Amino acid sequence: MPEVRAYAAQSATSGLAATTIVRREPRPDDVVIDVAYCGICHTDLSQTRNEWGGAEYPMVPGHEITGIVRAVGDHVHDLAVGARVGVGCFVDGGCSKGIGDREHEHRDFANLVATYNGHEHDGALTYGGYSQSIVVRRPYVLEIPDALPLDAAAPLLCAGITLYSPLVHWQAGAGRTVAVVGLGGLGHLGVKLARAFGAEVTVLSRTDDKRADALALGAHDFHATADPETFARLAGRFDLVLVTVGTTLDWSAHLRLLRTDGALVLLGMPDAPGSVNAFELITQRRSLAGSAIGSIPETRRMLEFCARHGITADIETIPIQDLAAAYARIDRGDVRYRFVIDMQSLGREPPAP
Amino acid sequence: MPEVRAYAAQSATSGLAATTIVRREPRPDDVVIDVAYCGICHTDLSQTRNEWGGAEYPMVPGHEITGIVRAVGDHVHDLAVGARVGVGCFVDGGCSKGIGDREHEHRDFANLVATYNGHEHDGALTYGGYSQSIVVRRPYVLEIPDALPLDAAAPLLCAGITLYSPLVHWQAGAGRTVAVVGLGGLGHLGVKLARAFGAEVTVLSRTDDKRADALALGAHDFHATADPETFARLAGRFDLVLVTVGTTLDWSAHLRLLRTDGALVLLGMPDAPGSVNAFELITQRRSLAGSAIGSIPETRRMLEFCARHGITADIETIPIQDLAAAYARIDRGDVRYRFVIDMQSLGREPPAP
Repeated sequence: MPEVRAYAAQSATSGLAATTIVRREPRPDDVVIDVAYCGICHTDLSQTRNEWGGAEYPMVPGHEITGIVRAVGDHVHDLAVGARVGVGCFVDGGCSKGIGDREHEHRDFANLVATYNGHEHDGALTYGGYSQSIVVRRPYVLEIPDALPLDAAAPLLCAGITLYSPLVHWQAGAGRTVAVVGLGGLGHLGVKLARAFGAEVTVLSRTDDKRADALALGAHDFHATADPETFARLAGRFDLVLVTVGTTLDWSAHLRLLRTDGALVLLGMPDAPGSVNAFELITQRRSLAGSAIGSIPETRRMLEFCARHGITADIETIPIQDLAAAYARIDRGDVRYRFVIDMQSLGREPPAP
Repeated sequence: MPEVRAYAAQSATSGLAATTIVRREPRPDDVVIDVAYCGICHTDLSQTRNEWGGAEYPMVPGHEITGIVRAVGDHVHDLAVGARVGVGCFVDGGCSKGIGDREHEHRDFANLVATYNGHEHDGALTYGGYSQSIVVRRPYVLEIPDALPLDAAAPLLCAGITLYSPLVHWQAGAGRTVAVVGLGGLGHLGVKLARAFGAEVTVLSRTDDKRADALALGAHDFHATADPETFARLAGRFDLVLVTVGTTLDWSAHLRLLRTDGALVLLGMPDAPGSVNAFELITQRRSLAGSAIGSIPETRRMLEFCARHGITADIETIPIQDLAAAYARIDRGDVRYRFVIDMQSLGREPPAP
């Protein structure tokens, strides 16, 4: 089985360093992908540091993967060597045959194999996109439309679908008012997507620092949540408030920003349980909800939507040798708006024996 | 202006006693109703005791009112003297002309005049149904279908619409699984309504005491939440969980009872803020929501639905002189399932001058 170069954490405190891993020989329905780019998702930091528990090492993170098909298994007839493809948060499903929407529905967690820190059905630990190549079952490989460059499209595979899916589910569109809380890797794509859906888009950020960026990204309005008057001024304004930050906010205060039947949707995993005053829910039939990524068919629709509307992430490309510095900058919120690793920096040759 | 007999609280601790109040002379679009029956809603206890703040005295509670039209204003041509009618939680709206669905949408709280402890647009304190008669603007008067008896229909005006509205909004019906938490005045109507919607209905009650009642009311299944295994056994079972109790439950535990895209809907105002683990929302796109009563047009549809399906409340009728005993029994949950005051017990004559 081929060895390939990768970057891995060896423990919760080790940081990441160069290593080699083994990729399986392609099975009949597998696709072998040379990784071109891999976005850095905040999850990568949380998982390598075992902040959510359940970490297994060595851990090779990365689930915003784009690349080129190098080989396909005997049963794969709809994807050619050289095709431009992507892989998101999952590399296998509950059974080996189904490709229905539910099969790929990430929400049926028990049935899906995470791209990294997961277990294949044969028990093997999965390794993600911080590596030269990856081997993935065909149903989990997404074609990247020609209109999308592989580098700036990589973050769509996780951040993009994380925002696209709730905008579809909660029917953002013309005549609807959407607020995006937090302007980071998720939030900046939320602004672009909600704008392309036809919604009226407001960014809520802690301070005024990102006002100009928010408007340039397509937001119609911007308010700083550190301003105590913001919550009173915007009361009852929005149909949908998408929370992209991972800290636990004052949910009751944010619920009051919603119109009747509005939804406050959590997209980042908060660091602690939150408190809710039920009065805010009951009186206006509001909802506090959550959403995570989306199904494979929905991810495909998202990529087509982004291609039609020219939507990609605003990225800063780095060589993999700069990972530690990039992680440190993410820790202090200093990235506008997504780091993408150029995997050519790992080299194209197989590791020395 | 006519004086009529009523029962009122004079303070948060006075309890209720006989008194007289003044009803306005009918305006052109008013309907004068002789009150036949008035259901006792838990809100009556909370409000007369000023548990939610904002109580004004004397307070005449009661917003589950049925009766007979005694007189109509000059502009009322679609309702005759002698008609069987009902009045729910609101007696006027934001303006004097509109009868659209939104005008009567209770959720636009600011625009509606509560049936009691509210203020008419002229500033007058409103008095509710624990009285011989009431004067209400025509758009807020509902005709009671002939198939529904006035006594057992009275609780439909608040408890009934409180359950009907979320069952419609969250699309309870054939193939859907609905749990009703708490089997009281609200819950027992929830079981009957959800069953008539075609849903598979489960009652969750603290102990096994009400198992037989739940099944007799139409529930397909029953589980005691005091049994520690209940939550594990029912994990991921329901599309909709309706919480009819006014205590703050372990919402995260109840969220785990929901399927993907399920909703946990609070109908009773909890006594304290609750805590939520966002993980339960995000991983399965679940919602924590709330709902309160419903619009006037929806209440009309509810009454027609109940008439078609023969649904009324299970009631215990009392003379108004037994109010204190009834309130004490409600305090200990000892009513199956709704007290209704027979207003004939107030006498039909006007109060002595």
